[in-house]
Amino acid sequence: MTFTIQNALIPVDQGYSTTDVYIVDDRIQTIAPDLDPIGTLIDGRNKLLLPGFVNAHTHSSEMWQRGIIPPTPLELWLTELYDFSPLDPEQAYLSALGTAVETLLTGGTSVVDHLVLIPGRELETIAAAVRAYRQVGIRAFVAPLIQDEALSRGIPTGGSESEHETYLRSTEATLALIQEAVTQFHRPDEGVNILVAPTGTQLCSDALFEGCIELSDRYNLCRHAHLLETRAQQILAQEKYGCSAVEHLKQIGYLSSRTSLAHCVWLDDADIEIMAATQSTVVHNPLSNLRLGSGIAPILKYRQAGVNVAIGCDGSASNDSQDLLEAIKVGSILHNVTDLDYHHWITPREAIAMAALGGAKGLNLADDMGSLTVGKKADLVLYDLMSLSLLPRTDPIGLLVLGRPVNAVAHAWVNGNLIVKDGEMCNVNVNELKQNLFDRSEWSTKRQAPSVAQTEAKYRSVMGLPGITQGYS
Amino acid sequence: MTFTIQNALIPVDQGYSTTDVYIVDDRIQTIAPDLDPIGTLIDGRNKLLLPGFVNAHTHSSEMWQRGIIPPTPLELWLTELYDFSPLDPEQAYLSALGTAVETLLTGGTSVVDHLVLIPGRELETIAAAVRAYRQVGIRAFVAPLIQDEALSRGIPTGGSESEHETYLRSTEATLALIQEAVTQFHRPDEGVNILVAPTGTQLCSDALFEGCIELSDRYNLCRHAHLLETRAQQILAQEKYGCSAVEHLKQIGYLSSRTSLAHCVWLDDADIEIMAATQSTVVHNPLSNLRLGSGIAPILKYRQAGVNVAIGCDGSASNDSQDLLEAIKVGSILHNVTDLDYHHWITPREAIAMAALGGAKGLNLADDMGSLTVGKKADLVLYDLMSLSLLPRTDPIGLLVLGRPVNAVAHAWVNGNLIVKDGEMCNVNVNELKQNLFDRSEWSTKRQAPSVAQTEAKYRSVMGLPGITQGYS
Repeated sequence: MTFTIQNALIPVDQGYSTTDVYIVDDRIQTIAPDLDPIGTLIDGRNKLLLPGFVNAHTHSSEMWQRGIIPPTPLELWLTELYDFSPLDPEQAYLSALGTAVETLLTGGTSVVDHLVLIPGRELETIAAAVRAYRQVGIRAFVAPLIQDEALSRGIPTGGSESEHETYLRSTEATLALIQEAVTQFHRPDEGVNILVAPTGTQLCSDALFEGCIELSDRYNLCRHAHLLETRAQQILAQEKYGCSAVEHLKQIGYLSSRTSLAHCVWLDDADIEIMAATQSTVVHNPLSNLRLGSGIAPILKYRQAGVNVAIGCDGSASNDSQDLLEAIKVGSILHNVTDLDYHHWITPREAIAMAALGGAKGLNLADDMGSLTVGKKADLVLYDLMSLSLLPRTDPIGLLVLGRPVNAVAHAWVNGNLIVKDGEMCNVNVNELKQNLFDRSEWSTKRQAPSVAQTEAKYRSVMGLPGITQGYS
Repeated sequence: MTFTIQNALIPVDQGYSTTDVYIVDDRIQTIAPDLDPIGTLIDGRNKLLLPGFVNAHTHSSEMWQRGIIPPTPLELWLTELYDFSPLDPEQAYLSALGTAVETLLTGGTSVVDHLVLIPGRELETIAAAVRAYRQVGIRAFVAPLIQDEALSRGIPTGGSESEHETYLRSTEATLALIQEAVTQFHRPDEGVNILVAPTGTQLCSDALFEGCIELSDRYNLCRHAHLLETRAQQILAQEKYGCSAVEHLKQIGYLSSRTSLAHCVWLDDADIEIMAATQSTVVHNPLSNLRLGSGIAPILKYRQAGVNVAIGCDGSASNDSQDLLEAIKVGSILHNVTDLDYHHWITPREAIAMAALGGAKGLNLADDMGSLTVGKKADLVLYDLMSLSLLPRTDPIGLLVLGRPVNAVAHAWVNGNLIVKDGEMCNVNVNELKQNLFDRSEWSTKRQAPSVAQTEAKYRSVMGLPGITQGYS
């Protein structure tokens, strides 16, 4: 691809500048006004050019359950989620497509999919998601979600002993699976990356983490996990390790400059110091943290401590969308109520830097992505400033972040390839996708998740909540 | 108007039902399946029919400044806002149009516009907004924003004496203005209502409140105001009255079942009891409360105390949008982090009830609006469940509230009149509106608000913040 974007607005130190941009092959070659046009011409007038954002944590298959799980805390929500997880790789393909489309149409050019695997069809699930992401053209970071302990272990014991089922797959088999996924699918040069991604300390043995570290080192893979999303997980880590989960992850060597950790709601000051010292990345998922009542992650503290922060939508069943601009908005304004001193509040420009460069750093790609810089990858988004939601003309980035942009993405490129044109997906028939989603679903309100009742009694007891006099929904 | 909506999904106790609806003139006449069609036929297949929501607090002219004011607390933000307020009634017309369009396209069929008046051109400003709302066809509650004290009085003194300018208009002249507005514009039967709406205790004398009560009683007008939006306002009320603002408003008789109060962030338990006892309505504006760092309003406590709660977008410069579905989403999930017991959390159905019936109650119109009930006004919205953002099919209201619906409103009616058809405004040329907004604005980043520097030093001192070492932006 060779093309010239003409007369686009870009942010510069003192405000905005109107400029031209040469893209040659997969990279930004020149940024300067009044260039002689080369290749295809793109009209950038009344449009804002920004680096593509990273949707730095999601679970694509949750799209099938968005809107349906009642407002409940993570531990009960998970039980409900797992009782109805999709079991068909074709569904995994469709929800990955949907996740990619919504991410792209809200400014994201990369997606980290902490992919829930269909039991017994794990590699097929990964293949389905990879197929979708390759088709769309989004830069994909597929992080197969693994664990080696039963879901019921995710709730603190409160000191009492419980019986737990053995997890369906052994630690060794799980590590072998990831190794096979790397062999089959890890193609960074083609925009498809595999990450090691134990779900988190609450459901993973040290052996699983250590095996992932070994794979990460051997194949140069990024590392991902959930970390201290809920108060229950904080309690559980103390029960399990006698120290914080962060301290434990440091001790076993999981934290690094290529490790990104989703949520990080319940870290204390000592934990934050460890995150900074190890150059680990926090992936902030503000909407799911509210939706599940997990808490407000101490993002202003992370920023003050020098911890890198990225932004994610989280899975569609806990958000319940993949609108990255919404996550960026709420992920910045939410923290204004946590610190009286507005000098610490996140500005719109800082918010997009978290979503772009912060996301790139968390994937160890800060040299290649995340800013409008000559030599970096052409992962770019051109926003239509004539969208009603971005009018009248004020501060375009201010309105993009603090407003509620609708139909705002005009064009998007990944690796120099045009994948959104005039607001339409280039490589996906969205009407067909909608029909497929429609045909494979039905309107409903209440499902009866068989496992929730048992889990709920235990959860309420351990968390010090009054006994149940009614169902949760 | 006589028409039949056929085969629409509506919420019923046990889930959803597919039904037909007769609308005759301005009212819902029948709700039942398989009706013989009368009048115009509306295809409701794969669509969800809900009562229109109320955007229960906004300031339309702030649209001109959306995106541009940096993240700062209300008291500084206001100073910046007022330094650049629109001074042209044509601008007031255009921003009222824009506010109505965004509200309608996100489910709102009524708007409460706490309208900032152009000094010296007050009635022209009201006329411009009324003209816009009549043109669009939205049900309008125009609440001219009045005060009789200078803006600088809105910051607590901290015990020190300050000089304040005299406000530009006397109390008497202000009350005469509202009386004239009622005479000229208050036409409830035509969908245009005038409210009495002192901005709040922080900038209004008792004489102004008492004059408004008298007008409200004489003309049967609803009452509106801001109430305890910020910590500074709480401190100020104590300085001014020696009691809480709520206690004071009760004493002077402003609170009633037709009084709606925007924000209500800093109320204590005694205040909440007063709100319940007086049947006053809280208008929750979650996004501006976050954006301005005002705090999280204790909405779960209000609900438990039986206080009616409605939802507003607040003005576009503190949100910075008029997406009512976004306000409903954030206004429900935000509170999950304030109460560990998820039995108290707001469900999606409760959220839309706040936005519909809660809004109607706050306007003393619960008998006429706010639910799908035979005999009520046909203020209705039909959502397109084939929008990608509302797929796959799960719980339609769950996804409407918890998701991020885009292009979701198919049709909307107010008073039985079709004003949105197939996602397009019937009575507004939106392209022309966009061009007008474009032509009257320019891209910029920093403006120099002359008043902010003085205000800031005082604000930081009174609020106990460290001295200024740098500007706020």
